[in-house]
Amino acid sequence: MLCIVFEILYVHLKNAHRNWSDFWMSVSLNRSYNLPLNLAGRAFVLSFFFFFFTDVFDEIKCIHLSLFLEEERRMSHMGFRCLEISRWVICGLIGILTGLIACFIDIMVEKLAGCKYQVIKENIEKFTEVGGLSISLILWAVLNCAFVLVGGIMVAYIEPIAAGSGIPQIKCYLNGVKIPRVVRLKTLLVKVLGVICSVAGGLAVGKEGPMIHSGAVVAAGVSQGRSTSLKRDFKMFEYFRRDTEKRDFVSAGAAAGVSAAFGAPVGGVLFSLEEGASFWNQMLTWRIFFASMISTFTLNFFLSIYHGKPGDLSNPGLINFGRFESDSVAYYYYELPLFMGMGAIGGLLGALFNSINYWLTIFRIRYVHRPCLQVMEALLVAAVTATVSFTMIYFSNDCQPLGPEHNEEYPLQALWTTFLIKSDVISSFSFICFCLKPCIHCTLSILYGEYNSMATAFFNTPERSVRSLFHNQPGSYNPLTLGLFTLTYFFLACWTYGLAVSAGVFIPSLLIGAAWGRLCGILLASFTPTSPIWADPGKYALIGAAAQLGGIVRMTLSLTVIMVEATGNVTYGLPIMLVLMTAKIVGDYFQEGLYDIHIKLQSVPFLHWEAPATSHWLTAREVMSSPVTCFNRIEKVGTIVDVLSNTSTNHNGFPVVVQPAKLCGLILRSQLIVLLKHKVFVELARSRLSQRKLQLKDFRDAYPRFPPIQSIHVSQDERECMMDLTEFMNATPYTVPQDTSLPRVFKLFRALGLRHLVVVDDENRVIGLVTRKDLARYHLGKHGLEELQLAQT
Amino acid sequence: MLCIVFEILYVHLKNAHRNWSDFWMSVSLNRSYNLPLNLAGRAFVLSFFFFFFTDVFDEIKCIHLSLFLEEERRMSHMGFRCLEISRWVICGLIGILTGLIACFIDIMVEKLAGCKYQVIKENIEKFTEVGGLSISLILWAVLNCAFVLVGGIMVAYIEPIAAGSGIPQIKCYLNGVKIPRVVRLKTLLVKVLGVICSVAGGLAVGKEGPMIHSGAVVAAGVSQGRSTSLKRDFKMFEYFRRDTEKRDFVSAGAAAGVSAAFGAPVGGVLFSLEEGASFWNQMLTWRIFFASMISTFTLNFFLSIYHGKPGDLSNPGLINFGRFESDSVAYYYYELPLFMGMGAIGGLLGALFNSINYWLTIFRIRYVHRPCLQVMEALLVAAVTATVSFTMIYFSNDCQPLGPEHNEEYPLQALWTTFLIKSDVISSFSFICFCLKPCIHCTLSILYGEYNSMATAFFNTPERSVRSLFHNQPGSYNPLTLGLFTLTYFFLACWTYGLAVSAGVFIPSLLIGAAWGRLCGILLASFTPTSPIWADPGKYALIGAAAQLGGIVRMTLSLTVIMVEATGNVTYGLPIMLVLMTAKIVGDYFQEGLYDIHIKLQSVPFLHWEAPATSHWLTAREVMSSPVTCFNRIEKVGTIVDVLSNTSTNHNGFPVVVQPAKLCGLILRSQLIVLLKHKVFVELARSRLSQRKLQLKDFRDAYPRFPPIQSIHVSQDERECMMDLTEFMNATPYTVPQDTSLPRVFKLFRALGLRHLVVVDDENRVIGLVTRKDLARYHLGKHGLEELQLAQT
Repeated sequence: MLCIVFEILYVHLKNAHRNWSDFWMSVSLNRSYNLPLNLAGRAFVLSFFFFFFTDVFDEIKCIHLSLFLEEERRMSHMGFRCLEISRWVICGLIGILTGLIACFIDIMVEKLAGCKYQVIKENIEKFTEVGGLSISLILWAVLNCAFVLVGGIMVAYIEPIAAGSGIPQIKCYLNGVKIPRVVRLKTLLVKVLGVICSVAGGLAVGKEGPMIHSGAVVAAGVSQGRSTSLKRDFKMFEYFRRDTEKRDFVSAGAAAGVSAAFGAPVGGVLFSLEEGASFWNQMLTWRIFFASMISTFTLNFFLSIYHGKPGDLSNPGLINFGRFESDSVAYYYYELPLFMGMGAIGGLLGALFNSINYWLTIFRIRYVHRPCLQVMEALLVAAVTATVSFTMIYFSNDCQPLGPEHNEEYPLQALWTTFLIKSDVISSFSFICFCLKPCIHCTLSILYGEYNSMATAFFNTPERSVRSLFHNQPGSYNPLTLGLFTLTYFFLACWTYGLAVSAGVFIPSLLIGAAWGRLCGILLASFTPTSPIWADPGKYALIGAAAQLGGIVRMTLSLTVIMVEATGNVTYGLPIMLVLMTAKIVGDYFQEGLYDIHIKLQSVPFLHWEAPATSHWLTAREVMSSPVTCFNRIEKVGTIVDVLSNTSTNHNGFPVVVQPAKLCGLILRSQLIVLLKHKVFVELARSRLSQRKLQLKDFRDAYPRFPPIQSIHVSQDERECMMDLTEFMNATPYTVPQDTSLPRVFKLFRALGLRHLVVVDDENRVIGLVTRKDLARYHLGKHGLEELQLAQT
Repeated sequence: MLCIVFEILYVHLKNAHRNWSDFWMSVSLNRSYNLPLNLAGRAFVLSFFFFFFTDVFDEIKCIHLSLFLEEERRMSHMGFRCLEISRWVICGLIGILTGLIACFIDIMVEKLAGCKYQVIKENIEKFTEVGGLSISLILWAVLNCAFVLVGGIMVAYIEPIAAGSGIPQIKCYLNGVKIPRVVRLKTLLVKVLGVICSVAGGLAVGKEGPMIHSGAVVAAGVSQGRSTSLKRDFKMFEYFRRDTEKRDFVSAGAAAGVSAAFGAPVGGVLFSLEEGASFWNQMLTWRIFFASMISTFTLNFFLSIYHGKPGDLSNPGLINFGRFESDSVAYYYYELPLFMGMGAIGGLLGALFNSINYWLTIFRIRYVHRPCLQVMEALLVAAVTATVSFTMIYFSNDCQPLGPEHNEEYPLQALWTTFLIKSDVISSFSFICFCLKPCIHCTLSILYGEYNSMATAFFNTPERSVRSLFHNQPGSYNPLTLGLFTLTYFFLACWTYGLAVSAGVFIPSLLIGAAWGRLCGILLASFTPTSPIWADPGKYALIGAAAQLGGIVRMTLSLTVIMVEATGNVTYGLPIMLVLMTAKIVGDYFQEGLYDIHIKLQSVPFLHWEAPATSHWLTAREVMSSPVTCFNRIEKVGTIVDVLSNTSTNHNGFPVVVQPAKLCGLILRSQLIVLLKHKVFVELARSRLSQRKLQLKDFRDAYPRFPPIQSIHVSQDERECMMDLTEFMNATPYTVPQDTSLPRVFKLFRALGLRHLVVVDDENRVIGLVTRKDLARYHLGKHGLEELQLAQT
């Protein structure tokens, strides 16, 4: 199975332009595996791919043409009920598959890192005898780089959109912005394998963010019941081959992703709603919740089997924060101002993080745009991360006694243990005896029964480090360790985000925050040594983690709920909310959120929740694009072809008018292309009466990859034909009078998920067209309303 | 303080039509309290009332007239920021006040019930010596009836809208339906005092539902910065005197209410969103969440002080379900089908409950509509409840040994104890010795060290009974007890809901469900006595409670989250969701949800989330009201007065046209009335140049109680004047072409919160007007689309 996947990647690397079916042929024809494996593998891969993937090029617009209405009118009550049931089935599938992917990532990371450490262990055992441990260290760094190399190459050469956490892309998608290739099969594959490589490669990254993107791709695939890439159509879920329906399912997928990542089904629902759905629909939300629940259940169920404790449903996510006991008093009300102060610190640090990352990204866009350079940068970061970590541990002498009550399952009893048992990967305790051999380097010779707390922080999976910072006994860390760790990890994480690897920023942020939060707790406790309330620096670590994460990503409601669900203690709701609020307010004063920065750098027409506050003086007349290219109800084919071929305008929606310029409908580029492709011309219909009528199915089959106009051949004779658009246009497009204020137009767009809004005068004549881009231009800057330049996507 | 409140009620009873300021004068002038108490009391009551109450007559429509636009355009960036801050301040206040009200209710119930039992105890002590215990029992029933009498009289005579839980009313309000008096000060007072009386009176009711209504009234009051009833204007928050803004705050209030009731801030937010906000706005949601958090924090904070454990923030709501330990395995995946089976039972029982209650309500509407009859029915129910409970305990011989590990704080060691220690009201243990005296009646002579489990279920506050059913040791209840309890309590609760008392249905539902759920658990365990998984009937009690509640109220997402938050264990999320889903599906097959039934019986134009599925063949032309009463841009005053006075049509919105019938704006009845009141006539403006221009403030001052047209005097001369509506109308109303399908119109209404939508032809001429009522008529019944008859509200 794995071999096949790597094979796929290899073949694909060689010929990036060949399409999937070709390459699959090459794989299946030229291979010489032994038969059973080959067949089983193929069957699995085939079912895996064919069952639920499709590629997507998205056009968010409810096709409301007469054909569609006709279908809806024909449909019986029972038909609608069946559709509703299908929606539930799809959401269930989305949940299951997302959970399985999360499970796969988790297990693969464990396995791969396990192999890596096995190799290093054997090497160290060899060299400890003869001296020359630095060689082992180099080996270790090289192995890390190797993983990052694989991940980097996949991302940089095969699918650059899979870089990073994918959250900005999903935000854009749910917002209604077209981003090519964002929910394709290939993206998912690269994302999943990429994140495994980067986490196994020891970068300062998390595997949680990419889960959201993965869930979204799964949803986009399942809901269409076919794979465009693989040219396979299952003839199911055809009704959902529309932008609005697909977007709803993608919301569910993103929620399922959050749910699997953090064990936070409600947080997932709120994330989807916060980022996506502008029109709240009860049934939709309920389905999203269902997908989230199923996803976290699936993950938990399979992981419990994998860990040999079937039925233990206490680990619902890829990360959980461990149990904060609520038996004692959780916090005192007079601590709230302190928490808010920490929120402010988080906001400041977050703004700093974002600013540095902003400049770094600009630098990357200018100078590091070639794939090979991107891969090299990733390798550099991997090497530096390893080196810095090693140096920090090497010079640290923060040795803590190993009490009987420590929380970790695999106590890091010695430095070398920490090097080897980097995570919970290796469950065999055969290491321990090895690790307790006297080390040759004086700094490294740590007494039996002690462990290096710097190593606890640095050489652990980030998830486990976060948990240690939350739950270890007071006194487990010395302040200097925490300070140094915060400093180095801050810059490492900042450098890492935006690399051409697939990786999330949630966990690194939590880790930075937990470190300085715990530091705050320790310092506060040192001022008031007698009072018992400061006894738990873990609480401050939690608050710090929330503050830092809030300062970087600036999410609000959903993040609060995610944190509360991951903590498993509702009592912390209020402080976490206050902290996130403070962090957001302080952070917003200096710099936007990380995701917003990256969205802005892509110059996409992203619509915020409301029009800028001071935009009431703008009217539709000033905002709209004008003049508008309109078509007549019965239009010459030549004119249509010429307009569609005109690359300088590149419009997507065209008002249909009857003379003089009176609006009677709206038709989309994609619909026109399907009409041209099927040559639905008035003259032909007359001459060839037997020609079958164009059906809704033809539009659905073409969705979502409508061919470009250049690929459609129209002869000179045909150019003289006429096309009757009446039956295919949307006969009741939304319109506004020209004096409508911008906030009103904006609300209409946002609430109804529009892409085109026709502006008419009081005679119902078309005088302009408002698109997303026209609205997204306006932005509230420091000096009032500003106009942005947006890319032509 | 309390005296004053009762005084108020007494005075008000005597003269129900006198308005508040008059009655206040009478209170303050005629009283003869000693001075300090009087002054302090008055100051408190005054500040209490004046600070945050107002009365509301609601018209949900964004006034978008030119004046308004002008104001927005004049406002600076800073101005908008101040508004935003005010919104946050208001939400904070809503949270604090809602929390305080919850706290007040909780403490009052404890105190009153405490007094009641003190009296009964003394009486019993007297009669135990001389025989004749039945007299004590009668005294006890009479006391209960007395409480119910007070509550019933307040509700039936003073403010009938305060009956029941108020949730249907709040659902309607948030949906945009005008319900008179629903968010008035008087309603709140009656609601709060009424719920205290009914809970203290021992009815099968909860105090949680009314909290939601209370929170909503608080919000409506605070956000307006004045009290219309008390004729007091604080000149603050004037900007928010609009329907849209007020509705947003009422959402926050309802959420704060849920949050205080169940300690479920996230559940509260979801409740508000599920019931109200159709257009999801991030900042609004965040503010709602803030209000919820503050509310639960306030309640918890003050209750912790009251209970002498300041800072203990572990009791965030009026009810909490106790701690379900997640150390052991919460549930096994093969239990899920069982849970779903229980969900189906819950759906069936819920449908039965709703059907019985439906017929009962119809009966009440027909025959029990006079206030005195309503009060008498309430008294009857109170007496029957007491009698049935007594009989059940009297004949029950389910005596359980009192183990050392029992969960209750005040173990019900003997029947009489349970009679006396009905709740956690009485903390003194002086009862115990009394109770352990040998009783004279043989059935009552319960051995030392045993307790009557029927009494545990029946004679406890419902909240505490629910907790006992969830957490008591296996074997605490015998199946017969549980079965009988379920049966009797089911009918009692069903009879009680809809009485003229202020009371919630949440807790009784939970209690019924917990009882039969625990019964299911016990029965299942008896089939497989060796397997350890059935060891915890408490889990089944929880599932049963969820199933029953879901079967009755049919809430989905928000209820799941509320249950999970009250349980404090995220692991139960999936089973609870599955159960609620099954209960809803099964229940919906037979009967609608309880709240929906009551909403339907009121015949209000309630809009659901989507248009009925099979309504695509309906177009705006068929749905709209036609012909429409239109006004000219410059219209004769006489015409306007005649139209407004015409009670047969009673329209609220009027399209404004220029001849011939071309749409140029929309004006509301309320705006016209303000214009008429201020005599904004063209002729007068010419003759009296010095007359000040009508400002937005004039509209706001009139909001929300616009005078009726009859109260405005227009002389015969004035009738001949003209009015220029240009400046005051909404110049860019939303319009649709006549061929728009019903679902599209519906979506526009729902997403934008419209009340009027003008239907135009392709020449922009008005041909009809769609209102909420036109849309709410259509309903998907068993036999396809049905049309309902709606009341003229």
